[in-house]
Amino acid sequence: MSGLHLPMKFCSHCGATVSLAIPAGDTLPRHVCTGCGTIHYQNPKMVIGCIAEWEGRILLCRRAIEPRYGLWTLPAGFMENNETTAEAAARETLEEACAEVDIGHLFALVNIPHIHQVHMFYTARLIDGRFGAGAESLETALFDEADIPWPSMAFRSVSFALRAWLEDRKKGHFGLHTTDLFPPTPNQVPPTPAG
Amino acid sequence: MSGLHLPMKFCSHCGATVSLAIPAGDTLPRHVCTGCGTIHYQNPKMVIGCIAEWEGRILLCRRAIEPRYGLWTLPAGFMENNETTAEAAARETLEEACAEVDIGHLFALVNIPHIHQVHMFYTARLIDGRFGAGAESLETALFDEADIPWPSMAFRSVSFALRAWLEDRKKGHFGLHTTDLFPPTPNQVPPTPAG
Repeated sequence: MSGLHLPMKFCSHCGATVSLAIPAGDTLPRHVCTGCGTIHYQNPKMVIGCIAEWEGRILLCRRAIEPRYGLWTLPAGFMENNETTAEAAARETLEEACAEVDIGHLFALVNIPHIHQVHMFYTARLIDGRFGAGAESLETALFDEADIPWPSMAFRSVSFALRAWLEDRKKGHFGLHTTDLFPPTPNQVPPTPAG
Repeated sequence: MSGLHLPMKFCSHCGATVSLAIPAGDTLPRHVCTGCGTIHYQNPKMVIGCIAEWEGRILLCRRAIEPRYGLWTLPAGFMENNETTAEAAARETLEEACAEVDIGHLFALVNIPHIHQVHMFYTARLIDGRFGAGAESLETALFDEADIPWPSMAFRSVSFALRAWLEDRKKGHFGLHTTDLFPPTPNQVPPTPAG
């Protein structure tokens, strides 16, 4: 079980209880230890991946984990300590799609403030065209533009990055695309996978 | 005291002790609760700011807090939950320099993997030219390029972004600049402020 969405009740440093309070000089309530006084800040996390191309087709992964089990996504995941954003994109692609990539440049930055995440997608190329299904993927495949399973995409950030990439490819120039996503209205929620 | 660099000893969910272990299906050691089994992931944090311009000059802040007390920096700070990257840049500028800004686009992305941070700087313009010293600043000022106190800059990421901005201004086009910073060699450590 991941502690990502569990409420903080105890100080991770001394084990005493924490309470919500606005520290002196601060403007927001924080989890403050009632024992040792440590302030436990909580900050957004980065989810980093890439749009990996091979002979004009794009590498997608079908998720073997929740959320969005069974739906398609770009290889991406939480950035780890002690790595760079580009290293995170390459590592996630190796883990989820067993594919080695040359990372290009930052292509999309997507803020999703209500879930405390910033998603980043890099341009990339498969090094040798090889790929497979990592532990978190049911399958992986290269897609021509016409075959991309848009109704079965797992995340709005992924669809945003992919559409921008396809448009930029037509223009012959890959820029940097940013957007902010807010809680989806009911008709924006990805469907339950068919199979 | 901030809990940022304190070792995790206790589960923030149930208060039991944690131990370092590689969870099933994972590749890195994590803090895992010996009581409830919660896995406590630790991820990099984003520090976000802006290069705020007014009539050709740049807004800098002299730090009233550690680290780098007394040295100069761009307005920037840790991104909070429930905000976007651009909102973080504007909020930090208001807090540290009492200045309202129109945020432009992402201009610099700096990875600093050994301290688990990603720094981002946006282009920006002061809205009305007004600014002041927030609680975390000894003073703030607008600097012409020739007057920028390079030897008294607080952080290498800030110097990188500022130099790139000045070069891009000469070219008449502001791009996106990325770099990775590793532990400084002794002669790269910013000096103790003179006064």
